[in-house]
Amino acid sequence: MSIYEFTSPVKKLIEELKKIPGIGRKSAQRICFFLLKSQAENALALANAIKEAREQTFFCSICNNITTKDPCDICADADRETNKICVVEEPFNIYSIERTDLYKGMYHVLHGNLSPIRGIGPDELKIPGLIKRLQAGQVEEIILATSPTTEGNATAHYLSEIIKKNTNNTNNTNRIKITRLALGIPIGADIDYVDSVTIARAMEGRIEL
Amino acid sequence: MSIYEFTSPVKKLIEELKKIPGIGRKSAQRICFFLLKSQAENALALANAIKEAREQTFFCSICNNITTKDPCDICADADRETNKICVVEEPFNIYSIERTDLYKGMYHVLHGNLSPIRGIGPDELKIPGLIKRLQAGQVEEIILATSPTTEGNATAHYLSEIIKKNTNNTNNTNRIKITRLALGIPIGADIDYVDSVTIARAMEGRIEL
Repeated sequence: MSIYEFTSPVKKLIEELKKIPGIGRKSAQRICFFLLKSQAENALALANAIKEAREQTFFCSICNNITTKDPCDICADADRETNKICVVEEPFNIYSIERTDLYKGMYHVLHGNLSPIRGIGPDELKIPGLIKRLQAGQVEEIILATSPTTEGNATAHYLSEIIKKNTNNTNNTNRIKITRLALGIPIGADIDYVDSVTIARAMEGRIEL
Repeated sequence: MSIYEFTSPVKKLIEELKKIPGIGRKSAQRICFFLLKSQAENALALANAIKEAREQTFFCSICNNITTKDPCDICADADRETNKICVVEEPFNIYSIERTDLYKGMYHVLHGNLSPIRGIGPDELKIPGLIKRLQAGQVEEIILATSPTTEGNATAHYLSEIIKKNTNNTNNTNRIKITRLALGIPIGADIDYVDSVTIARAMEGRIEL
C-alpha cells in the first residue's frame, strides 16, 4: 500500500461529517482534525450536545417547530394573536421573524418546500395539520413566508390554492386572508447591485408616500 | 419575553457547533437543524464518531500524525525511506502528499505554524522532536512543506535556521539538505488569473527544457 489512508475512526468521523449538507471532503477533514486537536472536553461536549438535542427535542404537535415540550413555547403563549398564522419552511425561519419583534401571531413549519426535482410533494410537507388549524375557524390571516425562490413560490401558490379550496365550505363566514411577504430592495442595498427581477418586483409593489 | 429563543438543547448544540472554525451562526443553525431533522441514527452516528475518534486516536510519538497505534502506520512501515523527512503543518497535509504517490519518505507534523499574532511561538509547535530525529543522524534531506503563506514561510525560515544550528555539531559529516516545495503556476491555471507574486516566483524558478 503506497497511499496511506486516514486511520479508521478518523475516516468514519469524516464520512459522518460529509453527510451534512454543505460540508464537503475538505471541510469535513478540517472539522475532524479541529475536533481531534482541540481539547477533549470540546469534542465530547459537541458529541453530547448532538445526542441530547436529538434525544430531548421533537416537533410541536401544533406548529411543527422543534421543541422540548408540547405544545411549544410559542403555541403555548396565551399572549400571542391566535388569529394569524405565519407559514415558514424551516424551524429557524421562526427565529429570523421573531428577531424583528414585530409579528405576534402563531407559526406553522412546513419542514421544506415543494420540489418535484428532489421528490418533495405535498405529502412530504406538514400541510394537513395546517388545513386542520385553519378549519378550526379562528384564523383570519395566513402569511405565507416561504422564500421568494422557484420552490418557495410554488409552495406558496400551492398552499394558497389548497387553503382556499379547504376553508370555503367551513363555518368561516369571512374568507381567510392569504398574504405573502413583500418583495423589494433590501435595506442598505445599492440599487446598482440589485438584480433586475428584484427591481421589477419593487417597482410593481411601489408604495405611495 | 417577545423574542423567542431556541429551546435549550438546540441553543447548546448551536453554541458547540459555532466553536468550530469556519462555522458561523447561520451555518451552525443549518447543521443543527439538519441533525435534528435527519434520521436519529445519522445524528447519533455523528455523535458516536466524534466520541470514538476522540477516544481512540492520539499523536504518533515519532511524527505527531494522528493515529490509533504508536508508532503510526507510516513511521512503522519498513519500506519507507527513513533518510527523508517531510515537515507539514497539519496531519491532513500528509494525505494530500501521499495522494501524489511520489514521496516515500517519512513525515513530521508541526501542528501549526509560527504566528506571533495568534500567540503561536516555537514552543507551541512540535519542533524539539524534529530536531531529535535529525540529530539521530540518519536523515539526509528535510523537505519543509509548510504553506507558501506569511506564516508558513516564517515557519520554514525559522526551521531551516534552527536545523542548521542544531545539526552541525553532531556526527553528521554531511550537512542535512534542507528543501522547500517549488513555487509556481498551478497545473491547469490560466496565466491571466494567476496573481503576480506567483508569476514572479514561477519566473525566478524557471526550468531549462
